[in-house]
Amino acid sequence: MKLYDLDVSGNCYKVRLFASLAHIELETVSINIAAGEHKQPPLSDLNPLCQLPVLQDGPDTFRDSQAILVYLAGAYGGLAWWPRHAQGQGEIVQWLSFAANEVQHSLCTARLIQKFGVVSDKAAALAKSAAVLSILDKHLERHDWLAIGRPSIADCAVYPYVVLAPEGDVDLRPYGRVARWIERVKALPRYLTQP
Amino acid sequence: MKLYDLDVSGNCYKVRLFASLAHIELETVSINIAAGEHKQPPLSDLNPLCQLPVLQDGPDTFRDSQAILVYLAGAYGGLAWWPRHAQGQGEIVQWLSFAANEVQHSLCTARLIQKFGVVSDKAAALAKSAAVLSILDKHLERHDWLAIGRPSIADCAVYPYVVLAPEGDVDLRPYGRVARWIERVKALPRYLTQP
Repeated sequence: MKLYDLDVSGNCYKVRLFASLAHIELETVSINIAAGEHKQPPLSDLNPLCQLPVLQDGPDTFRDSQAILVYLAGAYGGLAWWPRHAQGQGEIVQWLSFAANEVQHSLCTARLIQKFGVVSDKAAALAKSAAVLSILDKHLERHDWLAIGRPSIADCAVYPYVVLAPEGDVDLRPYGRVARWIERVKALPRYLTQP
Repeated sequence: MKLYDLDVSGNCYKVRLFASLAHIELETVSINIAAGEHKQPPLSDLNPLCQLPVLQDGPDTFRDSQAILVYLAGAYGGLAWWPRHAQGQGEIVQWLSFAANEVQHSLCTARLIQKFGVVSDKAAALAKSAAVLSILDKHLERHDWLAIGRPSIADCAVYPYVVLAPEGDVDLRPYGRVARWIERVKALPRYLTQP
């Protein structure tokens, strides 16, 4: 099973982190985005959105980090990370959408601006980041994990851009419950850091 | 089962459309966003993101249109719309993320600017809309439906802001395959229009 990967990408880290936590073996294939490999075949055929990560498992190809988490958990990760019942799946997908939309357009954007020189509105990204972290912090007031009362792919989807937030000039110190959730994630067996 | 609803919202339309197609009965409760009802209790307690739709089913509450589709399909809609196998779920979640992120920040934004006077970069929204529609059109070259070879919650998540795109000053005419997919959705039994 091949993961087309970019080491600095938080979206790719979601998949690497989950695969490690769930004992899933992946062969990672590093893509050179400076050379535009993600915008050329074979990558642009595998993912017309020209984004990473992309997962190839035999005849099946999946783009989008959230979709890859759902696939890996369903096919290999077991019910601990992605239960079969509708309540649990609904609860988790709330956070997958939060990762795909709110986190992407706040913490991830701030990091792209600060660390990679992408031109975008930094003040807007920081304001959205504060809103996202406040929502998370409030949720963690009464929950140890984002969904279903235990670690799940919801945590794997949201965690990377939160722990990488300081690289986007985002101060995590006002969010004590987020900091404690980060420590809980780091204490999981087979936890993997971002390189 | 209560859907806290906003009639002009494409995100709420995703849920109303799917519920109709899948014979699921919903009691809709209209929320007055002009009066800020979505930012006050009880709505802000049900959804700290202060967005609509919100679904309440007995003790369970779900925010986010994608999560609500997964919950409704899993709990009431049957396997036709959201299969149990990992391949099918992975395939569908690719399009749920596409709806939550790419469609939201292109077609939906263009409509918010054009129809509701929201201040944002219209040229950027139109450029992103064209990119999103091109990806869809290319995908529909070899597929009648977005995922799993039949209508699914993937179509319900992406369809609303596509069919409403002309309200955002987006011209759908260059995208012939998208137009034919729209016709296929409209021909589904118990299809529901946006009011």
